[in-house]
Amino acid sequence: MAEKLFSITEPVPYAGKGGGEELAFRHYDPEEVVDGKTMAEHLRFAVCYWHSLCWPGTDPFGGPTFDRPWFKDDSMASAKAKADAAFELFSLLRAPFFCFHDADVRPDGGGFAQSRANLEEMTDHLGALMETSGVKLLWGTANLFTHRRYQAGAATNPDPEVFAYAAATVKDCLDATMRLGGENYVLWGGREGYETLLNTDLAAEEKQLARFLHLVAEHRHKIGFKGQLLIEPKPQEPTKHQHDFDVATVSGFLHRHGLDKEYKLNIEAGHAFLAGHGFEHEIALAQSLGLFGSIDMNRNDLLSGWDTDQFPNSVAACALAYYEILRGGGFGAGGTNFDAKLRRQSIAPDDLLHAHIGGMDTCARGFKLARRMLADGRLEQLRRERYAGWSGELGADLLAGRLDLDAIAKLVAERGLDPQPKSGRQELLENIFGNISVE
Amino acid sequence: MAEKLFSITEPVPYAGKGGGEELAFRHYDPEEVVDGKTMAEHLRFAVCYWHSLCWPGTDPFGGPTFDRPWFKDDSMASAKAKADAAFELFSLLRAPFFCFHDADVRPDGGGFAQSRANLEEMTDHLGALMETSGVKLLWGTANLFTHRRYQAGAATNPDPEVFAYAAATVKDCLDATMRLGGENYVLWGGREGYETLLNTDLAAEEKQLARFLHLVAEHRHKIGFKGQLLIEPKPQEPTKHQHDFDVATVSGFLHRHGLDKEYKLNIEAGHAFLAGHGFEHEIALAQSLGLFGSIDMNRNDLLSGWDTDQFPNSVAACALAYYEILRGGGFGAGGTNFDAKLRRQSIAPDDLLHAHIGGMDTCARGFKLARRMLADGRLEQLRRERYAGWSGELGADLLAGRLDLDAIAKLVAERGLDPQPKSGRQELLENIFGNISVE
Amino acid sequence: MAEKLFSITEPVPYAGKGGGEELAFRHYDPEEVVDGKTMAEHLRFAVCYWHSLCWPGTDPFGGPTFDRPWFKDDSMASAKAKADAAFELFSLLRAPFFCFHDADVRPDGGGFAQSRANLEEMTDHLGALMETSGVKLLWGTANLFTHRRYQAGAATNPDPEVFAYAAATVKDCLDATMRLGGENYVLWGGREGYETLLNTDLAAEEKQLARFLHLVAEHRHKIGFKGQLLIEPKPQEPTKHQHDFDVATVSGFLHRHGLDKEYKLNIEAGHAFLAGHGFEHEIALAQSLGLFGSIDMNRNDLLSGWDTDQFPNSVAACALAYYEILRGGGFGAGGTNFDAKLRRQSIAPDDLLHAHIGGMDTCARGFKLARRMLADGRLEQLRRERYAGWSGELGADLLAGRLDLDAIAKLVAERGLDPQPKSGRQELLENIFGNISVE
Amino acid sequence: MAEKLFSITEPVPYAGKGGGEELAFRHYDPEEVVDGKTMAEHLRFAVCYWHSLCWPGTDPFGGPTFDRPWFKDDSMASAKAKADAAFELFSLLRAPFFCFHDADVRPDGGGFAQSRANLEEMTDHLGALMETSGVKLLWGTANLFTHRRYQAGAATNPDPEVFAYAAATVKDCLDATMRLGGENYVLWGGREGYETLLNTDLAAEEKQLARFLHLVAEHRHKIGFKGQLLIEPKPQEPTKHQHDFDVATVSGFLHRHGLDKEYKLNIEAGHAFLAGHGFEHEIALAQSLGLFGSIDMNRNDLLSGWDTDQFPNSVAACALAYYEILRGGGFGAGGTNFDAKLRRQSIAPDDLLHAHIGGMDTCARGFKLARRMLADGRLEQLRRERYAGWSGELGADLLAGRLDLDAIAKLVAERGLDPQPKSGRQELLENIFGNISVE
Repeated sequence: MAEKLFSITEPVPYAGKGGGEELAFRHYDPEEVVDGKTMAEHLRFAVCYWHSLCWPGTDPFGGPTFDRPWFKDDSMASAKAKADAAFELFSLLRAPFFCFHDADVRPDGGGFAQSRANLEEMTDHLGALMETSGVKLLWGTANLFTHRRYQAGAATNPDPEVFAYAAATVKDCLDATMRLGGENYVLWGGREGYETLLNTDLAAEEKQLARFLHLVAEHRHKIGFKGQLLIEPKPQEPTKHQHDFDVATVSGFLHRHGLDKEYKLNIEAGHAFLAGHGFEHEIALAQSLGLFGSIDMNRNDLLSGWDTDQFPNSVAACALAYYEILRGGGFGAGGTNFDAKLRRQSIAPDDLLHAHIGGMDTCARGFKLARRMLADGRLEQLRRERYAGWSGELGADLLAGRLDLDAIAKLVAERGLDPQPKSGRQELLENIFGNISVE
Repeated sequence: MAEKLFSITEPVPYAGKGGGEELAFRHYDPEEVVDGKTMAEHLRFAVCYWHSLCWPGTDPFGGPTFDRPWFKDDSMASAKAKADAAFELFSLLRAPFFCFHDADVRPDGGGFAQSRANLEEMTDHLGALMETSGVKLLWGTANLFTHRRYQAGAATNPDPEVFAYAAATVKDCLDATMRLGGENYVLWGGREGYETLLNTDLAAEEKQLARFLHLVAEHRHKIGFKGQLLIEPKPQEPTKHQHDFDVATVSGFLHRHGLDKEYKLNIEAGHAFLAGHGFEHEIALAQSLGLFGSIDMNRNDLLSGWDTDQFPNSVAACALAYYEILRGGGFGAGGTNFDAKLRRQSIAPDDLLHAHIGGMDTCARGFKLARRMLADGRLEQLRRERYAGWSGELGADLLAGRLDLDAIAKLVAERGLDPQPKSGRQELLENIFGNISVE
Repeated sequence: MAEKLFSITEPVPYAGKGGGEELAFRHYDPEEVVDGKTMAEHLRFAVCYWHSLCWPGTDPFGGPTFDRPWFKDDSMASAKAKADAAFELFSLLRAPFFCFHDADVRPDGGGFAQSRANLEEMTDHLGALMETSGVKLLWGTANLFTHRRYQAGAATNPDPEVFAYAAATVKDCLDATMRLGGENYVLWGGREGYETLLNTDLAAEEKQLARFLHLVAEHRHKIGFKGQLLIEPKPQEPTKHQHDFDVATVSGFLHRHGLDKEYKLNIEAGHAFLAGHGFEHEIALAQSLGLFGSIDMNRNDLLSGWDTDQFPNSVAACALAYYEILRGGGFGAGGTNFDAKLRRQSIAPDDLLHAHIGGMDTCARGFKLARRMLADGRLEQLRRERYAGWSGELGADLLAGRLDLDAIAKLVAERGLDPQPKSGRQELLENIFGNISVE
Repeated sequence: MAEKLFSITEPVPYAGKGGGEELAFRHYDPEEVVDGKTMAEHLRFAVCYWHSLCWPGTDPFGGPTFDRPWFKDDSMASAKAKADAAFELFSLLRAPFFCFHDADVRPDGGGFAQSRANLEEMTDHLGALMETSGVKLLWGTANLFTHRRYQAGAATNPDPEVFAYAAATVKDCLDATMRLGGENYVLWGGREGYETLLNTDLAAEEKQLARFLHLVAEHRHKIGFKGQLLIEPKPQEPTKHQHDFDVATVSGFLHRHGLDKEYKLNIEAGHAFLAGHGFEHEIALAQSLGLFGSIDMNRNDLLSGWDTDQFPNSVAACALAYYEILRGGGFGAGGTNFDAKLRRQSIAPDDLLHAHIGGMDTCARGFKLARRMLADGRLEQLRRERYAGWSGELGADLLAGRLDLDAIAKLVAERGLDPQPKSGRQELLENIFGNISVE
C-alpha cells in the first residue's frame, strides 16, 4: 500500500543547488562531512509520527481533508499499514530518526490491558521495521491529553486514579522506548494546567506533578534506561495556562523539587513564540542553565495566536537556533524533530515529501550558516569585548563579593565614578550576521 | 502653590452610593471597619510619586501635555514644590502611603556625590512632610533605568563601573527608605535584560544580578532594615526581554541563587498581562510559592501591546486579585500601590483626584466582593471537593511515594481502573462568582 | 430522551437576587417590562444550535468529551432526537429564538440531492417543534467551511464548481430560513480568505465574493424574503487571513460593490477582539456607517490567541455593547445570539443550562446598566459639550467647505489662533460609568 | 561640524560580497543596471529626517542617549547644523531621497506666524543643500501629533480651531514640499483616533477627516502640485485606536467620501504587523484596489507589541514585499523610505551608517530575489493554474451573472456536481520561493 502512496520509490536524492527535479534536496546532503561528522550526524533529523501519519487535516472549523488508506478504521491491521507507510516515508526522506506517542502507533484498546497489549504488538512491529530500515528512535512519549479521561490533566488531575492511569501508561511507553533503543523520552504536559483558576489548586497540582516526575526518574534508573528524560515547555493551548510555561518556569520547578539533575528540556520553536520568547532565547537560556536537551523544529505563523506547527522556512531563524546549540557544544542525545504538519489543504501524499524536504534543506542551510558564524568569530569576539571590563580588578572584586554596599558606595564617591555608555552595536552585529553567507 | 492646584482644599469625603458630589468616594470609606480592621488598614493604598508628580504627559509620539508649576526647572526649589504638591495630593486623597524612586524626588546632581546630597536634603524634606501629614512610606526604590548610563542595564551592565554606580545608588535609597520608615524596598530591573541576544551573555548577566541582589540583602541585614525586599517582575519594555520575566521566572532565579528567603515579589497587574498571565494567576502562584509581597495595582489596555498603566476600573478583576491575596492571609507589610498614570489628555490637576478616587472605589468594591466570596464559601468548597480524591488511600499512597511505576501499573491493570471524567463546572463557578453581590 | 437529559423539566424560573436555587435566573426576568417592552423583547436572545447541540467537546489536542445520545450515529433519527433535545433546551431556557446552520440539523447526504432532501425533512421537523414550543428563528445560515470541498473557500474557491455548490447550498438554506420565518440570514465566510498569499489572487477572489453576495441579494428579492441579510466579520481562524476582517473592511467591500444597501452586519464580540478592536467599537462603527444588524454575544479569553467562544461574564463589557446598540435605537430584526460554547470539561448536560443562565443574567444586567447610562445622560452631555465648538461659526464654515486651505491659513495667521488643549476627562467618564449602578 | 560626526568622509563604496571593510555596501550597488534601470532608480531609497536626525534616544522609561551637537538648543542655527549633518549623512549613504516633517527641520516658533517663517527659512536652506548634493525629496509631511495642541487629534479634534491650525500647517508643508520638488506628500493621522469611545463621536470625526482630506486635495489641484497624495495607515499607537487602521479601512473611507481618486497609500511594514497583517498583504491588497503608492520600510520586533521601527534585516520579508510591488509594476512616484531608527544603545554616529547600509543591502537582496521570482515564473504559473477553472464555461457564466441561485441549484442538482478538493501546494510554493537564490 505505502509503495503507491508517494510518486517516488527511491530515497530523495541530493541534487545540489543547480538541480531541476522537484523531489530532491537542494541544500541538505546527509552524507556531506563537516567537521568530521556527516550532516545527518550533526542535525539528527526525526520525522514525527503524529502530524505526518495520524492527523487527518481537521481544524476547529473543519473535518478531515486527508484521505489515507489507514484512516478507514481503528484496527491493528490499519495501525500496521500506517507503520509501514511511516517507514516508507522515513526511508524516502533518509531521516535517521522518528518520534512517536503510544496513541499514534496503536489503536486504543478501550482499557488499560488491551491498550498495553496493542502497544506491545506494535512495538514488535516497529522494531522489525527499524531493523529493516535502519531508522532509529529519537524519542518516545505517552499521549496523556487526547482521551477524555485526561480532560483535566494527567499528573495534575484532581482524580488520583487518572494520575495512576497516566503513570502506568508512561511506564509502558518508557519501557517500549527502551526496548526500541530510544535515545530520549519526552514528557509534554499538554493538559497539566488549567482552564480557570476558580477550580484549580496550584500548590496541590505542583506537588502532584513533582511526584509524577520523580516516579519517572526513579523508573528510568530502575530499568537502566540510558536515554535523556526531557520536559517540553509550552505556555498554553490546549489549556488556558500550562504549568510548564517556558524554560525559566520549568527550570524553577525542577530546582524546587530536586529534579534538575534528572531532566533536560525539549524546546519547540512555536512554543517559545507563544510564551513571548524567541526560539534562540529559549535555547540560549537552557544552555546557560545546563538544561538543553533537544529541539522540536517548526515555525508558527507570527500573526496567528495558536500553535500552527508549520515546517521551518527561515534560514536565518534556524541559523540563530543552531548557533545557540553549537555554542553549547551541539546535540548530545538530542536532535531535530520536525514537530510540524502539512497545511490542511496540502492533501496530496507527496506534499509530505515536499514539506520535509523544505524543512531539511532550511535546517541544513541554517546549520551551515551557524557554523560559519562561529568560524568567523567576530560575533563572539564582540560579545567578549563588551563584557571585558568584568575581567578587570573592579569586576573581579565585585563578583567575588569582596566589596559590600558601603564599600562600593565609598569607592564610587571617592573615585567620582561616572561611567559613560558605549554603543551596543546592534546594527553592526546584525549586519555581520546578515553578511555571513551560507553558500 | 499646591493649594491652588486642586479645586478642593479638604480631604475627599466618603459620600456613599447615593451622593451627588463629583469629588467624593462612593464606595471606599477609609474608616469603615470590616473584620476588625478599617478599610484603610486592609487595602493599604499608596500613591506613586513618579506617574502623578513627575510624568509630563509625553508618549513616544508626543511632547509634554501637563503644565505643572514644578516642571519649570530642575532645581531643588522645584523639587520641594513638587514634594509639597505631592503631600497635598496624598492628603486630599487620604492615602495612608506613598512610594518613590530617588530620581522622582531629587534633581540629578550631575554626579554621584551631588545626587546623594540632593537625595539627603530631600529625604529630610519628605520626612518633615510625612510627620506633618501622617502619610507613610510603603516603599522606596532606586531609578536605575532613566539615565543613559543605564542604557545597557544596571546590575547586568557589561561595564562593572555601572554595576558599582547602581549598587551605590541602591545603598543610598535603601538607607533613605529606612530613615523614612519605609515598610518595603522594591527592585525593578527595568533594563536588566537585552535588546539583542547577539551582544548578550545570559550566564554572565545572571551571575551579576545574583551578586547584586546578595549585596542588597546583606546590606539590609547590616543596617537592620526590617522591611520586606521585593522584586517586581516584568517581561519586557523598555527592554526586548527582561530577566525578571514573571513570578515563575523570578522564583527559579531566587532558588538557584539561594535568595528565596531574602526576597518576595511586588506583582503588577499590567506586567502580568504583558507576560501572558492573569493578575490573579501571578498572585496565586506567588502565594503558592511563599513569595507574595505586595501589588502594583493598575490595568493595561488589553488591546494595546505596551504598558498602559491605567487606573483599575474593573471590580471583578480587582475582586479576583484580592481573593488570592485574602486566601493567602492578606497583606503583611505590602499594600496596594497605584502604579497608574493619567491619560495624556487628562491635563486638569483635578483629573489626578478623579483618577485615584475611581481607583480606590474600584479596589474597595473588589476587596469587599473578595471578602464575600470567601465568606460565602461555595467556591472553596467546590474546589476542595474537586480534589477530595487525593485524601483517599490511593491518593495518599501516590503522594507519599509508596508505589513505584511498576506497582502503579500493576494496580491499574489488576483493578481495571478506568477513571471517568467529571464536569469541571466552570460556568457554574463563574455564575457563583458573578452572583455574589458586593453591595 | 431529551426529558432525561437535564435535571429539570420546568422552564428556568426567575428567582431574583435573593434566591437560593441553582438553576434560576437571578437578574433576567423575561417578562419584566422596561420602557414598554419586555426584557425578552429587548434582548431577543437566541441559543445557537452548533455549539450547544453539535460540538462534541473536541479541541486541537483532544477527542470528544461530551456524551450525548444523538452522537451515536449520523442518521436522520439521531438528527431528530437532537432537534427534540434542542427545543427542550430552548424551552427550559425560555429563549425566544434559535439559530442554525444546515449542517447542524441534518446529516450530510453524501451529495447535494440527498443533503437537500435531508434538510427539507428536518425543516419540517423543526417547523413543527417551533410551532409547538413558540420558539422562533433569529437566523439561519449555511455551513460552507466544515466539509473538505470547502477547504479553499466557498465563494472564493479557485474551483467554480465549489462556488456553484456553495451557492446552491445557500439557496436551500435561505429558502428554509424563509419557510421557518427566520428574521435574518447570516453569511460568515469562514474559509473566504487564504493560508498563503503565494497561491492566492486577491482581486479574483474579491470579484467572486461580490458576485456571490449579489446572487444572494437577488434571490432574497426574488423570493420576497423580508429578513435582514447579515455578514459576519472575522479576521482569521480557521484561515490565516479572512477577507471579511472587520466592520471597516466589510463596509469598504460593500461600498466598492454596490452592496451596502443589501447587507448589514452580525458582529461577534470575540471576532472584534481577534481583529484588535473592542466589541463596542465594532458596534459603534457599524452604527455610524448604518450597517448595524445583530450580535453574536460571547467572550474570548483575552490571553488566548484563538476564538474561545465563552459565555459572557462581564456586566461592564455587555453594558458598553448594549449602550452602543441603544444609542442607535436598539435591535430591529437583530438579536443577541449566544455564539458561545461550554468549556470542554463541562460535560454534564446541566452545564448547558448554567452557561446560558449565566450569559442571560449577565446580558440582562448589562442591558439595564446601558439603559441607566442613557437615562442618566451625563455621558452623552459630556460628549456633546466636547464637540460643541463645531456648532459655532468657524466649525460650520469649515464643515460646509466655505474656506479653502489658503483662507484657513490666512485666518489662522491673522487671528493668531493658538488653541489650547482641554482635558479629555477620561477618568471622570470612567468613574461616571463605574458609578451608575445597575441594581 | 558634520564632517567630524562620522568616521568617513567619502561616500560608502560598493565593495561586493567578498570585501572586508566595515562601512561598505556588500549587496547594494546603486549604479548596477538591472532591466534597464539602476538599482538606485528601482529602489528609490529615502532617509527619514526624524529618526536619524531628531530622535534623541528616549523611550517611555529613559531619557536621551544620543549626544548630537544640534541637540544643544532649539535655535535656527542648530536647525541648520542639523540640516548640514543630514545632507552629510544622505550623501555618505548615496541616498537619492530624503523625507521630512516640518517639525523635524525647523524650531517651533511658539505660534503659527513664527513657525511659518522658520519653515520658510529652512526650506531655503534645504533647497540649497539639495541643489548642492543632488539629493531629492521623496515626500514632505506635517507633524500634527507632537505638540500638545494636537493631543486630541488634528482634523478630528473636538475643537475646530485645532482643525484650522492643522489645515493651515498642512498648507505650508504642502507648499514647501512643492517648492522643494517633492514627489509625494504624506498624511499620517497619528492622533486621528481615540483613547476612549466614551468621549468620542465616530461619525462626527469621520466627517471632519473627510473634509480635511478634501481640502488638501483641492489645494493640491489649486497649486498644481503634481506629486502623489498618500495616506499612511496605522492601527494604533499613539492612540488606542486610529481611524486609518489599515489598507482595507482607508480604502472604505476613501470610497465612502469620493476620495479614492485623490489619494494613494504609503504602507509601513511595522504598521501592517500591528494591524494583524503581513506587509506583503497590505501591499498586495493596495495593488488590487489600485491604491498602492509608496512604502515605509522597516521591521517590528514581532514579540513586542509596539512600533519598534527597526531597520529591515530579513531578505525574505523584503523579497515578498518587493514581489507584490513588482507584480503591480514597481514604484511610480513612490519609493523605499527607511522609517527606521537606531536602537537606543547605538549611540555612535557611525551606527547611523551601519544601520542604513544594512537596510539598503537587505532591500537590494530582497529586490533582486523578487525579480528572480518573477523571472522564474513558476509561482505565477501555479497561481494561474489554480484559478484556471474560472476561465471555463461555468466560471464565466457565474461571473457574468448569467445564472441566478435557482439556476445554479438546478445545475448542481442535475449534474450531481461533487467537486473534489485539490492540494493547495503551500509547502511546494514555499520551497520554490526558498530555493530561488538571489546571489
